[in-house]
Amino acid sequence: MPEAPQTLDGWYVLHDFRTLDVKAWQSASAAERTEAWDSLEELLLQYDAINSTSQGSFGFYQMAGHKADVLFLHFRPTVAELIDVKTKLQKTSMAPYLQSPYSYVSVVELGGYLAKPGVDVETDEYLQSRLKPRIPEMDQICFYPMSKRRDGQDNWYMLPTEDRAKLMRSHGMIGRTYAEKVKQIISGSMGLDDWEWGVTLFAHDPLEFKKIVQEMRFDEVSARFADFGVFLVGCRVKVEDAKRSWDIL
Amino acid sequence: MPEAPQTLDGWYVLHDFRTLDVKAWQSASAAERTEAWDSLEELLLQYDAINSTSQGSFGFYQMAGHKADVLFLHFRPTVAELIDVKTKLQKTSMAPYLQSPYSYVSVVELGGYLAKPGVDVETDEYLQSRLKPRIPEMDQICFYPMSKRRDGQDNWYMLPTEDRAKLMRSHGMIGRTYAEKVKQIISGSMGLDDWEWGVTLFAHDPLEFKKIVQEMRFDEVSARFADFGVFLVGCRVKVEDAKRSWDIL
Amino acid sequence: MPEAPQTLDGWYVLHDFRTLDVKAWQSASAAERTEAWDSLEELLLQYDAINSTSQGSFGFYQMAGHKADVLFLHFRPTVAELIDVKTKLQKTSMAPYLQSPYSYVSVVELGGYLAKPGVDVETDEYLQSRLKPRIPEMDQICFYPMSKRRDGQDNWYMLPTEDRAKLMRSHGMIGRTYAEKVKQIISGSMGLDDWEWGVTLFAHDPLEFKKIVQEMRFDEVSARFADFGVFLVGCRVKVEDAKRSWDIL
Amino acid sequence: MPEAPQTLDGWYVLHDFRTLDVKAWQSASAAERTEAWDSLEELLLQYDAINSTSQGSFGFYQMAGHKADVLFLHFRPTVAELIDVKTKLQKTSMAPYLQSPYSYVSVVELGGYLAKPGVDVETDEYLQSRLKPRIPEMDQICFYPMSKRRDGQDNWYMLPTEDRAKLMRSHGMIGRTYAEKVKQIISGSMGLDDWEWGVTLFAHDPLEFKKIVQEMRFDEVSARFADFGVFLVGCRVKVEDAKRSWDIL
Amino acid sequence: MPEAPQTLDGWYVLHDFRTLDVKAWQSASAAERTEAWDSLEELLLQYDAINSTSQGSFGFYQMAGHKADVLFLHFRPTVAELIDVKTKLQKTSMAPYLQSPYSYVSVVELGGYLAKPGVDVETDEYLQSRLKPRIPEMDQICFYPMSKRRDGQDNWYMLPTEDRAKLMRSHGMIGRTYAEKVKQIISGSMGLDDWEWGVTLFAHDPLEFKKIVQEMRFDEVSARFADFGVFLVGCRVKVEDAKRSWDIL
Repeated sequence: MPEAPQTLDGWYVLHDFRTLDVKAWQSASAAERTEAWDSLEELLLQYDAINSTSQGSFGFYQMAGHKADVLFLHFRPTVAELIDVKTKLQKTSMAPYLQSPYSYVSVVELGGYLAKPGVDVETDEYLQSRLKPRIPEMDQICFYPMSKRRDGQDNWYMLPTEDRAKLMRSHGMIGRTYAEKVKQIISGSMGLDDWEWGVTLFAHDPLEFKKIVQEMRFDEVSARFADFGVFLVGCRVKVEDAKRSWDIL
Repeated sequence: MPEAPQTLDGWYVLHDFRTLDVKAWQSASAAERTEAWDSLEELLLQYDAINSTSQGSFGFYQMAGHKADVLFLHFRPTVAELIDVKTKLQKTSMAPYLQSPYSYVSVVELGGYLAKPGVDVETDEYLQSRLKPRIPEMDQICFYPMSKRRDGQDNWYMLPTEDRAKLMRSHGMIGRTYAEKVKQIISGSMGLDDWEWGVTLFAHDPLEFKKIVQEMRFDEVSARFADFGVFLVGCRVKVEDAKRSWDIL
Repeated sequence: MPEAPQTLDGWYVLHDFRTLDVKAWQSASAAERTEAWDSLEELLLQYDAINSTSQGSFGFYQMAGHKADVLFLHFRPTVAELIDVKTKLQKTSMAPYLQSPYSYVSVVELGGYLAKPGVDVETDEYLQSRLKPRIPEMDQICFYPMSKRRDGQDNWYMLPTEDRAKLMRSHGMIGRTYAEKVKQIISGSMGLDDWEWGVTLFAHDPLEFKKIVQEMRFDEVSARFADFGVFLVGCRVKVEDAKRSWDIL
Repeated sequence: MPEAPQTLDGWYVLHDFRTLDVKAWQSASAAERTEAWDSLEELLLQYDAINSTSQGSFGFYQMAGHKADVLFLHFRPTVAELIDVKTKLQKTSMAPYLQSPYSYVSVVELGGYLAKPGVDVETDEYLQSRLKPRIPEMDQICFYPMSKRRDGQDNWYMLPTEDRAKLMRSHGMIGRTYAEKVKQIISGSMGLDDWEWGVTLFAHDPLEFKKIVQEMRFDEVSARFADFGVFLVGCRVKVEDAKRSWDIL
Repeated sequence: MPEAPQTLDGWYVLHDFRTLDVKAWQSASAAERTEAWDSLEELLLQYDAINSTSQGSFGFYQMAGHKADVLFLHFRPTVAELIDVKTKLQKTSMAPYLQSPYSYVSVVELGGYLAKPGVDVETDEYLQSRLKPRIPEMDQICFYPMSKRRDGQDNWYMLPTEDRAKLMRSHGMIGRTYAEKVKQIISGSMGLDDWEWGVTLFAHDPLEFKKIVQEMRFDEVSARFADFGVFLVGCRVKVEDAKRSWDIL
């Protein structure tokens, strides 16, 4: 039996995608809409406040296409807190106008090999900054879930440990060539959600999402062993600009 | 033809997942919401009372992500009772605010080999405690359905009996190393629901769900022979704390 | 080309699964609910009356889980009558409270080999009783659709006729060992609905559904050649007890 | 590269399946229902009038099961007209009570080999009658979409031209043995809808649908190379009898 | 590892498909409908104005079948603008009557080999006209998403670079034979949406969509390596004729 790789696990992650129910929204009175918006804005500020603590991160995004209009992206130390931030949104006056087409529950994951001998994961600054990540200051976001394939000859989990390590190394090399252009947060979701990982990419230029995904697809790890779920792409909205940016009033 | 393994079967299980219809809930008057909540609380107490009998078990959970907000977890001696507990919920004043995105019907299953010669399953305390399980006193829950694969060379049901037994033994060993951290209830659902088994895991730390699922995925039984459905994760709510914990009012 | 097996075909079958729209139901006034229920009860009596003729059969069941709350099970001589019984339900005052999550259209099917030389299918009592079946006096029901697989080496329809016959014989043997515990009605649905067959099982003990399905899954016919759709399980409601049994008022 | 077969293409086809929204229908006043029905009846007459021209065909059917209640079947010379007949239905007072669970867009297709040398397709009576078909005077209808498989060794589009021709010839022979009992219209939908073909069968006895589909499934063309979508079955309603036949008032 | 091909990337594309909510539309008063239509017409004019600039393209289409009633087709320089055009539509008085069954986000893509040595992509007129395309003056449109297959022996991304190049060359030859009849815009969507490419075809005669798709399906690139999503077909509506063409009032 191949050995399961060690992982380092950080904050839990909730990708909470929402669409605006336009019919309900436009039926609401101006007063109701203002109240709804104010309650959302207040919650956004409350969510955002976590960014000035070491207890979590939060980002707000507008999404392209019909699959989602906005994304509330939460990093928190526990699953209970992910439930709490969802419940808080459900309780705002904005919630009746927001539908929940998709979400993703996962936990930030790093390769265990990063914990070099002698390094204390709990105090190592570099590891802690990756396990408990800040939202990158980049305006474009891309999210997709994925699993490693277990299909006849193309079964990742039946490969010898060395083969997997070698393949991952070459895969990581591609990622590294994009290090300046694309920041990526990998979060594991086995036992937590329907796919094995969530991938969240950040960039200044969304074309870099296409380039890195395409280049990796020719890499054997993806070519032979990756199955992908939905892809969603969007742009960051600074909480203080939310009203102006997500221009729905 | 490989021989079908004997199983021991216990209580029937209903995983009854629900989401709150936020739009309907917020449109309700305070009085309607109070009445709805009171009717739910009364039913929760009624469900919970089964825990002090030997006629079933009940647990209530809040779930992460958009797939479900709460889980009503019922163990009962008959399918008719599973229908009855569903109907009881449908009749509360809370029911119009609860949607039914998912459920799972199964029956607690143990390997027949556990019934050692001379053991009377009906009176053996250990077997009875596993066939008619109490809800573990652990705060975190994970549920997923699964089937064994029947795909070309990877066909579990075409393996010789000894090969299956050997593979399951090594699989069980992984489970055992998690015995303190993860309690699992396996329930069979062939002929009862869409997958072959339901797996319900309980832990103090949800990271253990990820660890056990990941470690098992490298085991040949899962790597070559397991197909998985949705994964749902959540936190226990004590019935007496329901109003405070599931904070929707 | 392998030869297509002859079949004997009997009554057409409609499995008409419904869920109760709890929100609409609870919004209705007591008078509306009474009227709705009365109209359903009247139709149930009308459906049920067919059981005392030789023109069809009818059974009413409550189902477990979220996929369906009730099943109206109709056997009738023509497709036109299946449309008619559906339309009759749609016209009751109960219909606005019933959603149609699933249904299945098929025709009772027996192996052609049962028509032994010299036997007149149209008058043979045994064959007629199986082609035009009465609803078994057993309280538990299980339904699932299935197809034979056509996948690479596992292609049922490319097997030589003798191989298929031999495999089906051993498969039938399993069914026969359950003859007392499980009554099964196989209905063909090629050209009529999305899978190739519907399987309807009846038993006194629902555990027998799990046992027969599990035992058959290790048989090569299922192990290599069967694909399954949804599984639904429930309990019979005698029409005279409907109001008390399906306790929704 | 195998050569793509020549086809002869005739009228475009819209299979427009609808279900009745029973809740909305029963909430409507008698006057609203009468107005709705009258508007539908007027449109049915207008649709039907095409049958006495050479500009198209139209048939109206009631369907079995929950997937559809009725089918509006249109043959027209252009895609623009298919859009027009849809829009016309949307504008009737009946439209708010009709949901659109499924439709299919295709174009009548004949094998190019039917255009024998010296034959002018545009004036040949036989070919024209098949390319611009009248609705057969048969009461039962069956529709399903399908594609040819492209899967490993079972890849229709990689077969040498002669092999495909030979396989299709034997396939056509089965169809011919049903010529009296089953009329079939094959319409191509590559580039037009989600499958490669739509198959519409007409018969006096719906059992013939099951028989022809089953017999063909054992033919290599279907056994190894066919993937099927949904199957829908129903009964013709003469436009003058629509009110009495589709008995929803 | 095979080398990832270079691409040239142009404008971002949003295929925004909508269906009319007939029930809501017919419940609206004449005044509400007029206001809704006027707001849509004003936005159509605003969308259309981009065609007289070099900042984007826009086309409006009516679609056949139930999957969509209209398509708003946008080409814009940034993802942020794709979000903006969606938001603008959501804010019109027409939006509450329009549902969003499907959309597609991608970016116009050309083979990198087109950038011959010495050519400056940013100024080359031919390349610029293809990267920032005008809407072709052809009345018929077809859209479908697709991916290259990664399945056992049929894994496009594991082919040697030369094999891919050779296969694509022969594939391109087919496209070229249709150059007069079918204009195609290929847009890449790796990292942007659920499939790898979107294909948008334009023609005077919709039969050409069927012909080119069918001919290509016999080409090895499609036969062995292409997976297809939904297919949608429709007809152009000139913005000045929208009211008359999309005849819903």
